[in-house]
Amino acid sequence: MVATPDKIQIEQTHLSVEELRKIHAFWRACNYLAVGMIYLQDNPLLKEPLTEQQVKNRLLGHWGTSPGLSFIYIHLNRLIKKYDLNTVYMAGPGHGAPGVLGPVYLEGTYSEVYPEKSEDEEGMKAFFKQFSFPGGIGSHCTPETPGSIHEGGELGYVLSHAYGAILDNPDLIVAAVVGDGEAETGPLATAWHSNKFINPIRDGAVLPILHLNGYKIANPTILARISHEELEYLFKGYGYKPYFVEGSDPEIMHQKMAATLETAILEIKEIQKEARISGIAQRPMWPMIVLRSPKGWTGPASVDGKKTEDFWRSHQVPLSGMHNNPGHIKILEDWLRSYKPEELFDATGKLLPELKDLAPTGTHRMSANPNANGGILRKDLKMPDFRDYGVTVDHPGKVEAENTKPLGNFLRDIMAKNMTNFRVFGPDETASNRLNAIYEVSKKVWMADIIEDDADGSELTTDGRVMEMLSEHTLQGWLEGYLLTGRHGFFHTYEAFAHVVDSMFNQHAKWLDICKNEVPWRASVSSLNILLSSTVWRQDHNGFSHQDPGYVDLVTNKSSEVVRVYFPPDANCLLSVANHCLKSQDYVNVIVADKQKHLQFLNMEDAIKHCTKGIGIWEWAGNDDCGTEPDLADVVMASCGDVATKESLAATAILRQEFPQLKVRFVNVVDLFKLQDHSEHPHGLSDWDFDSLFTKDKPIIFNFHGYPWLIHKLTYRRTNHHNLHVRGYKEKGNINTPLELAINNQIDRFNLVIDVIDRVPKLGSAAAYVRERMKNAIIEHRAYAYENGIDKPEINDWKWPF
Amino acid sequence: MVATPDKIQIEQTHLSVEELRKIHAFWRACNYLAVGMIYLQDNPLLKEPLTEQQVKNRLLGHWGTSPGLSFIYIHLNRLIKKYDLNTVYMAGPGHGAPGVLGPVYLEGTYSEVYPEKSEDEEGMKAFFKQFSFPGGIGSHCTPETPGSIHEGGELGYVLSHAYGAILDNPDLIVAAVVGDGEAETGPLATAWHSNKFINPIRDGAVLPILHLNGYKIANPTILARISHEELEYLFKGYGYKPYFVEGSDPEIMHQKMAATLETAILEIKEIQKEARISGIAQRPMWPMIVLRSPKGWTGPASVDGKKTEDFWRSHQVPLSGMHNNPGHIKILEDWLRSYKPEELFDATGKLLPELKDLAPTGTHRMSANPNANGGILRKDLKMPDFRDYGVTVDHPGKVEAENTKPLGNFLRDIMAKNMTNFRVFGPDETASNRLNAIYEVSKKVWMADIIEDDADGSELTTDGRVMEMLSEHTLQGWLEGYLLTGRHGFFHTYEAFAHVVDSMFNQHAKWLDICKNEVPWRASVSSLNILLSSTVWRQDHNGFSHQDPGYVDLVTNKSSEVVRVYFPPDANCLLSVANHCLKSQDYVNVIVADKQKHLQFLNMEDAIKHCTKGIGIWEWAGNDDCGTEPDLADVVMASCGDVATKESLAATAILRQEFPQLKVRFVNVVDLFKLQDHSEHPHGLSDWDFDSLFTKDKPIIFNFHGYPWLIHKLTYRRTNHHNLHVRGYKEKGNINTPLELAINNQIDRFNLVIDVIDRVPKLGSAAAYVRERMKNAIIEHRAYAYENGIDKPEINDWKWPF
Repeated sequence: MVATPDKIQIEQTHLSVEELRKIHAFWRACNYLAVGMIYLQDNPLLKEPLTEQQVKNRLLGHWGTSPGLSFIYIHLNRLIKKYDLNTVYMAGPGHGAPGVLGPVYLEGTYSEVYPEKSEDEEGMKAFFKQFSFPGGIGSHCTPETPGSIHEGGELGYVLSHAYGAILDNPDLIVAAVVGDGEAETGPLATAWHSNKFINPIRDGAVLPILHLNGYKIANPTILARISHEELEYLFKGYGYKPYFVEGSDPEIMHQKMAATLETAILEIKEIQKEARISGIAQRPMWPMIVLRSPKGWTGPASVDGKKTEDFWRSHQVPLSGMHNNPGHIKILEDWLRSYKPEELFDATGKLLPELKDLAPTGTHRMSANPNANGGILRKDLKMPDFRDYGVTVDHPGKVEAENTKPLGNFLRDIMAKNMTNFRVFGPDETASNRLNAIYEVSKKVWMADIIEDDADGSELTTDGRVMEMLSEHTLQGWLEGYLLTGRHGFFHTYEAFAHVVDSMFNQHAKWLDICKNEVPWRASVSSLNILLSSTVWRQDHNGFSHQDPGYVDLVTNKSSEVVRVYFPPDANCLLSVANHCLKSQDYVNVIVADKQKHLQFLNMEDAIKHCTKGIGIWEWAGNDDCGTEPDLADVVMASCGDVATKESLAATAILRQEFPQLKVRFVNVVDLFKLQDHSEHPHGLSDWDFDSLFTKDKPIIFNFHGYPWLIHKLTYRRTNHHNLHVRGYKEKGNINTPLELAINNQIDRFNLVIDVIDRVPKLGSAAAYVRERMKNAIIEHRAYAYENGIDKPEINDWKWPF
Repeated sequence: MVATPDKIQIEQTHLSVEELRKIHAFWRACNYLAVGMIYLQDNPLLKEPLTEQQVKNRLLGHWGTSPGLSFIYIHLNRLIKKYDLNTVYMAGPGHGAPGVLGPVYLEGTYSEVYPEKSEDEEGMKAFFKQFSFPGGIGSHCTPETPGSIHEGGELGYVLSHAYGAILDNPDLIVAAVVGDGEAETGPLATAWHSNKFINPIRDGAVLPILHLNGYKIANPTILARISHEELEYLFKGYGYKPYFVEGSDPEIMHQKMAATLETAILEIKEIQKEARISGIAQRPMWPMIVLRSPKGWTGPASVDGKKTEDFWRSHQVPLSGMHNNPGHIKILEDWLRSYKPEELFDATGKLLPELKDLAPTGTHRMSANPNANGGILRKDLKMPDFRDYGVTVDHPGKVEAENTKPLGNFLRDIMAKNMTNFRVFGPDETASNRLNAIYEVSKKVWMADIIEDDADGSELTTDGRVMEMLSEHTLQGWLEGYLLTGRHGFFHTYEAFAHVVDSMFNQHAKWLDICKNEVPWRASVSSLNILLSSTVWRQDHNGFSHQDPGYVDLVTNKSSEVVRVYFPPDANCLLSVANHCLKSQDYVNVIVADKQKHLQFLNMEDAIKHCTKGIGIWEWAGNDDCGTEPDLADVVMASCGDVATKESLAATAILRQEFPQLKVRFVNVVDLFKLQDHSEHPHGLSDWDFDSLFTKDKPIIFNFHGYPWLIHKLTYRRTNHHNLHVRGYKEKGNINTPLELAINNQIDRFNLVIDVIDRVPKLGSAAAYVRERMKNAIIEHRAYAYENGIDKPEINDWKWPF
């Protein structure tokens, strides 16, 4: 990367004197606005000497990264105009909003979206004041930021979001600024490998720009403190062609950045042109840029004798303690005036026309790119009729099917009808999760090397629409980027390891919540649909580390307006639920369904009714003549989840056979939030409805897929809660058979029968004998499993006997 | 990396013919055992022809990675013997236990630890059968595995665990095998940078071995499908000197591996020697090895006409459908016999002495290295008296302090007394979390470049004991490795972003649970102590994405034997709790305490009493003359968490001033699990104790730090649960002031007073006026905050008025 004299020459004269002057002026305006946002609540144009009262009481926002962010932004603007680019900007560094909001305001979008932040003195004052201010906007690129689909509040996802956005978006270039702090996170460190999944014919391009400003809150960054050689190796190793723009003198840096950015953009164009003309999709070495610039660039060199510019002290607010400190007010005023606002804005506060001209207009502005408000581009999925994929169920509980397999067929045909705006994402398990029918219409995308052997069942191709990488972080980031730019997707993953991306779920749910409730101009996007498969009850063989049904616990902590959780008990219910989720908008839908063979309960018609209600009595399973007399039941057997439902039914069958006089009601829950009070979740049942299902006073034996206390968390206000006895996973697992694992956690048929015997007094003298038989059955099963390594009968050998 | 002829010469003749023969025989024995574990339940030595009945009913375990894992293991053994090395082995690839258990058994450790798995035919049969068998052991390197401190069940942590183990362990070399699948995960991708924190004078060394066998479950791996050049760049970029051992012919591969491994080990020794003699700690390019070998190496080349060896079909069980399939039985028998067991074991089933001689003995065996059962090396921390760090509190609720600052002083002196076995870990926030007193005795370790400016407050040094990297994954991995090898540590992190490592918490808790309950030979290790700071209630300014108190919800899902959660309300309580946690063993202790200035309530003596009880009545705060008559109180004001407690006290003060006749009891909870039933958690109160604190029938207004429903989840069985009204964070945040954020979530004093008014009927006519005044106060506060950006009075301006 050592520059040749010629290259230096080109770099140093890339912009004409006039271009340089203007671009630098525009940047000064950006920096002026960034400082203004952090500090000022009045006197925005400094028309009078700055006073203490004009400075905000509370100084928030991060100066350190801001000048670099706007520097990149305006250099992109130049090329957007020059080459008519379609570009979205993503700011990875935390709290970098001042560096983005400045140019967004200067190019007029901000005032269009928020008219009271007008392009004049009053508007600028309002624009400054609202920043990091109660009732105003945050210091990240939150949903309120025009042009943003990446908040950056939690670090590490900018690259995966960027790559997700450009999938199937051939004209789009996402400029993804990676903070050198966030570059240390795991999700970011592996997301560089996303380039192995980008097809230059069909997809757009990401231009990663590593913003190496050297410092985090109080530390240098790793990538800023390794040798230039190591840094270059690292990015070549990740498969990029790195360009370096390094320095601090603005004039030289403008020239270097202009030249380098143009080189990179032209390389991207060339790569795409070549691939698209030849029709040959190969993985190129995509360009990326390392911008090494001082932290807090152009800010105070030192404050109170302490080095500030180009140091960690610039990270947040480089100059604080503004009250009763005229010296600091003076530094701030000098700093602001160093940008010469009077040469940038006219007397009304409007950016001078010759500078405004530097920005693109209309939807060419990165702040107004429709991809960054993807809901407005979103087209409904073309959906086949899910009923056509159902399993034939003539009688409940007699036939078996792999629950996820029909879903695979359904997804296959959805894929076939939506070959430019639908993708399926999973770590390495599309086939393992029985969704492999999808491969009939689209295989896995793979832009790394393909070898001859791959033809033998590897299902790889350069234009596949199934995305597999062993990084839940990258997958979810891709999908989020894909959805936020107006497309559709489906993410399936291991139940226990969904926790790897707990925090990504949290952040996306918060993003959706704000979009829905606070940002009316954002159009609705497709829901994030997550199938948790390889679930706890069939992880008996993989052991304890693979058993964790707690992801849904996290989900229930988020706003009820954006989260939905479904436990379809069989294949037809799964189809109905999936169909509903794939059509929905602005939710995170979590569907929990195991991939193994399971008993089938409902025909398609009944499944649709049941899933539409979300919860209901299975009349065929109980014997309480429900409907004629509401509380006739002696006991309510309730279930939620596939295996839990089967075991609960098996217990019900034993109860009905052993105690014909016992009136059993069977309730199944598909939509978890039905359990919650209607005031807490829009899906929640009214108390009247809940009581009519669960009775006001009879024992309820609730067999749950997950941790049992989650059911209590959702139902503690219910009338009959004190009679609610919940079974679920309670961390009692190791290497087991399926039935043994169920037994150890007491969700099995035998323990459920015992639970009923222990709670229903009128069962008579037979109860003690039945109870004893159940105990014996448990012991026999366990003994057989320990001897033979399998269940006898196997958990699935059971059929509904009535 | 192109080998020169000389190098090839050396590589190909590194082992003598005799050495080669033996080492290959030992490897054949390992592979024989691996296949045996996966398939056989009888006829372990194949003394008779194999029958279907001798094959397990259920075939589990992963063959694909196993031959590579044992290949590495036995080559390490050679060098351990030759150079008297102190080495621990960590197997990153998932389900790789057969490749590790084989050599562990052959070198005798397994039979020493588990005598019934003796070194004879009967023992071998038992050893085979228990593998992935109910009541037996898992397919990962679970806690039951001698020599393991890394299960590998969830992928991605092997490097961070390895680096944690070698900190302050100058003689130890950890051979960390990285699976090429797990190499795609984020945590693994960034953990390579751990080498920037390793001081060759004081720390040991990690030798990473990337096991490039090419395939995951059903896909190739990224790193196996980039060019050799890219791969080499990548590891040079990560700061390593990569060596490549590539091929499939066992003879050649043994020679290459022997030569390369020896080179790498000698380089490590040389680096350490040079640093230790010169006293100059520099970051070297540590060696690492890329072992590219076929997946399922030495297994069936093809099965039923499908390519198997060196392909993804070898990932798990390459040969299945063993029943009613004599052809497959034949293939299995041929495969097993291809290792020539009769040349490896004597008639009794014992490994031949000439082979046994290849393994080290005693604690030199990696399977018996005491570092892999770190509890036996653990020494108690030398602890100063935490009482000496207390804040002077003459009267409750009058003075303020930053709660974490005294803890910083305490940690500083713990550090000073334990300069070889205690470290502090945090993403980038030791100073931000007010723990910077630690720097007085030990700064941050930093082996990347240090520049002149760093002298000005960066607190960096090559022998620091504070570990900061912006990767929660790496930090927690380091700490786990450090603890499991017998040392002590303290991890502090952002409350909201603790979710980044939810899954690591899950895995570590499960590890501890199994160690404690199933593996008696494992000695206790120090607890994983986590301080969550920068908590939700003071993230008003950072906004919605930084507000998430749900980590503790996850924690409560795990076994009550290994999890503890504390909410110290003030600085003295935090000291008492931290002291307790730092002395404890085998727990994950989560402490939630904000770093900002907070009101102080208890002097040290009272704080100790209160924290020892874990929950208690604050008599000074209430006016119900508690003790004389248990249920005299009209209302119970309960609180848990620092800000929640302050607001609850402020509400109590208003109530007492406005309604002198109202009898208020004030209960504070430090130890969250006190709320749970004693049968659910060992810390849980009996019903009698709970009722005596919370009454059987009076309204309880419980102000909680986290999501309110967690309290319901813990208390739903309690007598007075139907009167329990919980306030907490309910996702109502954006950019706020602290009090406004409290108000929006109704944990503030005003809303709490209203809650009481709405639930206590006998307050009389004044109630309506007080209620109205509270409403007005809320509106006034919000209006002031919106205008001025700050609270008035600020949330901390309040003092306890009595």
